[in-house]
Amino acid sequence: MSDYFEEVMRKLTIEDVSILGWLFQNEANAVFKAIKKSSIADELEYSTANFRKTLNKLEAIHFIGTVTGGKEHKLYLTEYGQQAVQQAIHHGEENEEVEEI
Amino acid sequence: MSDYFEEVMRKLTIEDVSILGWLFQNEANAVFKAIKKSSIADELEYSTANFRKTLNKLEAIHFIGTVTGGKEHKLYLTEYGQQAVQQAIHHGEENEEVEEI
Repeated sequence: MSDYFEEVMRKLTIEDVSILGWLFQNEANAVFKAIKKSSIADELEYSTANFRKTLNKLEAIHFIGTVTGGKEHKLYLTEYGQQAVQQAIHHGEENEEVEEI
Repeated sequence: MSDYFEEVMRKLTIEDVSILGWLFQNEANAVFKAIKKSSIADELEYSTANFRKTLNKLEAIHFIGTVTGGKEHKLYLTEYGQQAVQQAIHHGEENEEVEEI
């Protein structure tokens, strides 16, 4: 069933990957390292509707988690979100090698 | 990574499983057997907002697919959606056996 993970990966959009990548670069990879939604929204300049839709999707596929309870919701990468970013980086490197040949 | 599929299964809601189960019972398990959204909405009596939210989630996790292009969108169960329903049925049977002992 690992092909299921690949299927979900294949259908990630640019908006999905940008949010996952930003959380990865900012090391939001654990609940206690979660980052405020507003900080992410400011950085990535999505429309509000597009931002909400992308977050709903990433949450539905369990690539991100939300920390509630504080003044503002915070987001972090789940283990699957981290796996997806690492695989995307790895695929990117492979493509670069192919181009160099 | 098959635990990823299990993780997504574990977090299905009653609304999710009801729609998957209805499509399964009505054999909407291929693109050409897809069923009109309105037929499903009429049967399951969700609020419009809840129906749309549930469909968005099931599509994000690739358990259902949408056929567009006709007068009205139609829905069908993907292979993963079928797998999820069969596993849910199987788990259900196992629990029944446990109760009988």
